[in-house]
Formats: sequence, structure tokens, C-alpha cells
Amino acid sequence: MADILIKGGHLITMDPQRRISERGSVAIEGNKITAVGKEVKEKADVVIDARGKAVLPGLINSHTHLPMTLLRGIADDMPLKLWLENEIWPTEAHLTPKHVHVGALLGCLEMIKSGTTCFADQYFFMEEVAKAVKESGLRAALSYGIIEKDDPKLRKSEIKKGTELIKNYHGSAGGRIITMYGPHAPYTCSKECLIEIKELAKKHKVGVHIHLSETVRGDVEVVEKKYGKRPFVYLDEIGFLGPEILAAHCVHLTDEEIDLARKNDVKIAHNPVSNMKLASGIAPVTTYLKNGIVVAIGTDGCASNNNLDMFEEMKVCSLVHKVRELDPTVVSANEVLTMATMGGAKALRWDKEIGSIEVGKKADLIIVDLKKPHLTPAHSVISNLVYSANGGDVDTVLVNGKILMQGRKVLTLDEEEILRRAQETAEDLVCKRRASK
Amino acid sequence: MADILIKGGHLITMDPQRRISERGSVAIEGNKITAVGKEVKEKADVVIDARGKAVLPGLINSHTHLPMTLLRGIADDMPLKLWLENEIWPTEAHLTPKHVHVGALLGCLEMIKSGTTCFADQYFFMEEVAKAVKESGLRAALSYGIIEKDDPKLRKSEIKKGTELIKNYHGSAGGRIITMYGPHAPYTCSKECLIEIKELAKKHKVGVHIHLSETVRGDVEVVEKKYGKRPFVYLDEIGFLGPEILAAHCVHLTDEEIDLARKNDVKIAHNPVSNMKLASGIAPVTTYLKNGIVVAIGTDGCASNNNLDMFEEMKVCSLVHKVRELDPTVVSANEVLTMATMGGAKALRWDKEIGSIEVGKKADLIIVDLKKPHLTPAHSVISNLVYSANGGDVDTVLVNGKILMQGRKVLTLDEEEILRRAQETAEDLVCKRRASK
Repeated sequence: MADILIKGGHLITMDPQRRISERGSVAIEGNKITAVGKEVKEKADVVIDARGKAVLPGLINSHTHLPMTLLRGIADDMPLKLWLENEIWPTEAHLTPKHVHVGALLGCLEMIKSGTTCFADQYFFMEEVAKAVKESGLRAALSYGIIEKDDPKLRKSEIKKGTELIKNYHGSAGGRIITMYGPHAPYTCSKECLIEIKELAKKHKVGVHIHLSETVRGDVEVVEKKYGKRPFVYLDEIGFLGPEILAAHCVHLTDEEIDLARKNDVKIAHNPVSNMKLASGIAPVTTYLKNGIVVAIGTDGCASNNNLDMFEEMKVCSLVHKVRELDPTVVSANEVLTMATMGGAKALRWDKEIGSIEVGKKADLIIVDLKKPHLTPAHSVISNLVYSANGGDVDTVLVNGKILMQGRKVLTLDEEEILRRAQETAEDLVCKRRASK
Repeated sequence: MADILIKGGHLITMDPQRRISERGSVAIEGNKITAVGKEVKEKADVVIDARGKAVLPGLINSHTHLPMTLLRGIADDMPLKLWLENEIWPTEAHLTPKHVHVGALLGCLEMIKSGTTCFADQYFFMEEVAKAVKESGLRAALSYGIIEKDDPKLRKSEIKKGTELIKNYHGSAGGRIITMYGPHAPYTCSKECLIEIKELAKKHKVGVHIHLSETVRGDVEVVEKKYGKRPFVYLDEIGFLGPEILAAHCVHLTDEEIDLARKNDVKIAHNPVSNMKLASGIAPVTTYLKNGIVVAIGTDGCASNNNLDMFEEMKVCSLVHKVRELDPTVVSANEVLTMATMGGAKALRWDKEIGSIEVGKKADLIIVDLKKPHLTPAHSVISNLVYSANGGDVDTVLVNGKILMQGRKVLTLDEEEILRRAQETAEDLVCKRRASK
């Protein structure tokens, strides 16, 4: 007898055969999927009626800075340099562990309510983010953001913080948390720093989450000036690139660099909304896909998005590449849903356990209510999910075999209390910043 | 004593001074707003508590083809020509008045649930759309889509249908319906047809809703080949342009054409999502705004969007222009909210009655629930509305002083019944098309 049986839903498995059943069921025992398909007739302790609903793998947000939910809407429509230097960084300077914890809880709540079951995060006070992940029931790949700016002393202490997170949290929360190294970027971390991290990641068997080639001016040109080479050429030469690298953004790559990404099996976390909002550019994603590079989707932090809704991110992803290529056939609904599920799982090298609904995989899945005006009629459920749904249509969320939300009620977190604390904490942060001016 | 008092909300008026009150009230008598602001102390028959919510003018969808809700997701990710010729047109050929009525009801329901209070429509069997508008309580500017393809006989019958709609429905539904002429486009309507319509519009004192310069190949180039001129140059020369022209799309205009649009006070209905999804291009909206041209926002039909969510449309509008210009300061949250409210009202020449919350204007307004994870914290309510909200956050909708939705329950339409009928009708349509193959 199964623990949970999800019964009679429009089942979108995202398995290697991309199987879909109009009426399918999923049986769950412990944290695993034990049966999938039309013929599942098991009994279970808990039966979830999914008729009139879509059942699909939980969405994976492959790049964010979760506690930045507290900075949502604090500054918009500004030039990137001013936005960072006059608004974001001076505010972040006042963040305490308490702020970070509340911001992370708010982010976890928002993700559950919009159908994201796993995310890759890079920030600081990451033990607070880990705490929020543990409480919320979500799955995450956490990394401490290392910024050392050619300072050997800072390098040592920053790398130490990164290693401590890995030692203390890798495999924690019943295996729901994995960790990565998080060197911020090649323009904020020296060659020595990146080489040391590469070796440590190998030693600890973890991945590396880094920002690469997000903007031309503050990023690619800085690396070119310092090293006389394009970022990927420089990183390849120092032996940094590899299959464990999760490269966020990759907006500005030359053909030579794309080839290096492909050869080294670098994974790309694509953030279309943030790249558009900050006017960073449009990543050549169709070329990445043609080259067989793994592309996942991320929302980036809330200050540059301004939400964590992966449904919105999927739609914008498809739209922006169609108009970039002036070709409506590229980045189809199917492709973008793949990026947001199996793409994310592969990017985090977690694809043996998550990313699709298959027997033996962890039970991370979401149920979307299709009985909505904007999801009617149901000519194509995948089209409706990608081009018409939003996070608010998610009805039920399971992670690791546990129900985190049902009928839009979050079971692991106190929604009202978190909203209250988040508002209070954000106001406190703004006051502290004002007082310091 | 007022009929309705909306009390204590975060009031975004969109009035000429762009007044905002953190705690403001709106009093309504009959179909009109009678008091606005902090100090409103009136009593009323119905009091709506708007604390923790935003109160703003209803959004105006300036270009759609409402019954195409039935074609949502029927064909995506296809080249435009094949999409139209192999999927959309052959399916539309089987549409009956009954189909159109159900599709229009579904569209009205979706609009109410996502905060749109007024829309400009162009389709056929428009009396069925008018019926749906009447039943739903929405406001609309309706036009019959005239396609005559140089056939004088067809021209006569098509223009007759357009005129009949105007005669029968202009000012109907208690003034909630106005009508326009709807010549489809300069590549589907002859010079004679456009000139005749221009004169008739003057005679009947109505506007003209037309598709202009949406794509290069099937549109601008066809006009250039036929008349040896760019579309706006040709239309200016035949005296067609003027302040009553609502020009949908305007993706491909030269500087000379932009100048003609400005001089003639042509109104532009910008459809960013549809233009991206069909890979038509990105309209030079920042140039239109710099030239003082009125720009409104539309979703276009559901087959190329695939929803009617004006919140999503606002966000994508801002994003796509920021990345097009590589400038994060353009098309700010404030500007895009203006386009979706006063811009729409001006585009329909209805701005004396709708588009803002001001004493004497019609009571068309929406209340958005801000107590949501993705709308917390409230550093900037306008930023949260444009960059983080979606249609599902709308709690209450009023049109012409009547409550159409409260607490997300639609009061004028039977939601469940419409969803059932829409699914059935869409299936019937697909069957009819299959049978004819």
C-alpha cells in the first residue's frame, strides 16, 4: 500500500519518452515515486483527486538569491551601476542573519505557492537560508557567495565560509539540501581563488555556482581588461570549466566561448526576465540548445525580476527567443518545460533523483488546477501551462514525498505570520539604511 | 449617501497629478465616482473594505479578438503563415454565432478575473460579442472586422455589416458599449474601401480600429508592392489617418511614418506578447512615447498570447523595451501602468469617462489583494503591481458602478457553466473542422 496516491490527473511525466496520459496516477511511498501511469490501481493512506488538474514535476529555479525578496521593488527602472551601487549594495550592507532568515522564508513561501520545488541559491548568511529550506520542506542547492577582490586574506576567510556551509549542510534536511561552492564571478574573484575553489569542489564532490558573462561593461570587459581574454577562454585556460560548473546568465558569449562551454559540459542557468529588466541583453539560448548544452531556467533575485514565478519565467523565455530570432518555432512550450524541469535537474547534477515523474525518483511534483477561464479550453495542456498559466494556478505541491501545499494552503509554513514578519523586517532594513546615510 | 464606498485602500488614481494615497477611499453613486481621497467620510449602502489592497482604475485591453479564446493553444510555435493558413483560418471557417457567443463569454469571464474592465474588439458575429458584454457587465468598443480583398460586392456587404453593428449597438448596454468601424488592414481592404469607411466613421461619429504594420512580409511588403509606398505614407495620402484611428501593432514604422502617426494623432494599440510569440518584431514604443503619441496596450487574441492577462502584458511590455534599447530606465512601471489605463482610455477616445479614478468619471475600478507572498514587502505598490502581480491577484472588479466580481467570485456570470460550455464548444469546433478535412 502506498503512502500517497495522486489519482486521475493529466499526467505530464517529462520522462525520457516524454509520456503524457490524460488520466494518469502516481503512487508514492516514503520519499519516492513507486508507480506511474494509467494502470496504477494501488491503495494509499492519502488519496489526492487530480481529476481536472495537471500533474507535473516540480519546477526547478536554477539561479536565485532568495533573501532578496526583502528588496522586491526597492529600486526599479534604474541603470545597472546606480541600481547596484546606490541601492542594492548599500541596503544589503545592513542585512543581519535575522533579515536573511525572514527573507528566505518569504522566498520559500512564494516558491511553494507558485510550484517551484527546488532552487539553486547563492547569497550570504546561508545557514539562515538552509534553516528556511529545512522548515519549508523544499529542496535546494545552496552556495555561499564568495567575493574576494584579489585580497588573499579575504580569500581565505571567504573560502572558509564556503567550505563550512558544505561541511555542515551537504546532504542535510533528509537529503533535501545539497551544497555548492559559490565564487561570485571572475571579475570579483581572482585566478588563485577560482583555482583553489575548483580543487576544493573536486575534493568535496560538489558543484560550483558562478555568475558568468551577464553584462558587457561591468563583467566581460573587466575580465578582458585584466586577463586579455574573453571570460570562457580565460577560465578554460586555468582549468576552471567542467561539468560541475553551473554558470548563471551567459548572456554574452562568442562562438569560441560557446564551443568551450559545450566541450567542458558547463551547465547554463538562463534568467530571461532579470536579463531583460536590467537590460543586460538576451542570451543566445537557441545556439546553446543546438550545441546540446544543458540550459536551465532561473528567476535571479527578486530585486531584478521582481518575483519567483517560474511559470512566468517559462513564458517570457519562449517569447524573448522567438522575437530575438524572428522565428516563432524556436524554444517551444515543450522545450521550455524541459528546461524548467529536467534542465534544472541536470544543471544541479541531481537528475538521477529529480526533474521527472518516474518510478524510483524522489516525489517532487506539483498539481495545477486547470479549471480556470485562462486555462480553458484544453486543446493542449502543455501549451496552457507554459503560455497561459501563472504560479497562482498551482493547487498542490509535494517535495520528497511530503505535501507542502494542498488546495493552495501551505502546510509547512505559517503564511500570515511570514508576510507580517517580512513586511516588518523589510521596513527595519530600510530604516537602518536611512539612519546610516 | 453613496451607493458604494471603497474604504481605506492603497489608492492609485492615475489622475493628471498621478495622486496616490496609502489610505484612500472612493465613493460611488449610480455609475459615477462622486468622491475620492483621504478625507472621504461618506456613508454608503455597500462598504467595501480595501485595507491591505490596492485600488486602481480598471485595465483597458486596447486590442483583442475575444472569441479566439476558443482557439487557445490550438496551435503554437509555428511559422505565422502556416499558423494562419493551416490552423487558425480553417478552424475559424467553422465558427457559428453560437461558438462566438460562448468564446466571448469565456473571454469576458477571463477579463473580469484578471482585472480588465474595458476592451476593444474586432471579430465577426459581433452581435454575439455585444450580448456577452451586456451579460458580463464589462465595457467595450466593438468593431466588425471588414475584409473585402478588392471585391466591390464583398465591400458593400462587409461595410453594411460594420454599419449595422454601429447602428444597433453604439451606446447600448447603458452606454457600456461603443462601436467602431473595423477595416481589417490595408492589405485586406482596398483604397476605395478605406476611403468609404473613413467617411462613414465621420458621419456616424465613431472611431476606426485597424491592424497596421504588424509584420514585414505579409503586411508592410504587400502594401509597398501594391501602392509603391510604406503603409502610413499611403494611408496619409488617401486621407485615412486621423485622431479616430486606433492602429493595432505598428511594429514596423520608419521615422517618416512615425512622424505621420504623430501629426495625425493616430492612437497605437501595442501588443508585446503577441508580437513576440508570432515573432513579428518589437514595436519602437519608446520612440512613440517620445513623440507624444498615445500608446495603449492590448493582448491580441488568445491564439497568439495565449491569455488576456493585462498584468502580464504590462510586465512584458516594460521588459521587452528595456532589453530592446539596452536601457533599464525606459518604459518604467509608472509609464506602463499609464498605457494600460489612461493610454487605453485615450486610444478609444473615452478618456473623459474612464481611465482614472476621478470625481465625475465612470466607476470602473479594480481592487488588488496585496497580502500575497509575491507582493510582499510593499516598498512600492506600483512596482509590485507591474513587475510582480498577475491577474489572479485581482480581488474585486467594478464597472459602471456595478460590482462584477468580489472576493474573486464573479457575480454576473456563472463561471462553472461557462467553463463547461466553452470546453464543449471548442471540442465541437475541432470536430467540425476535422470532419471537413
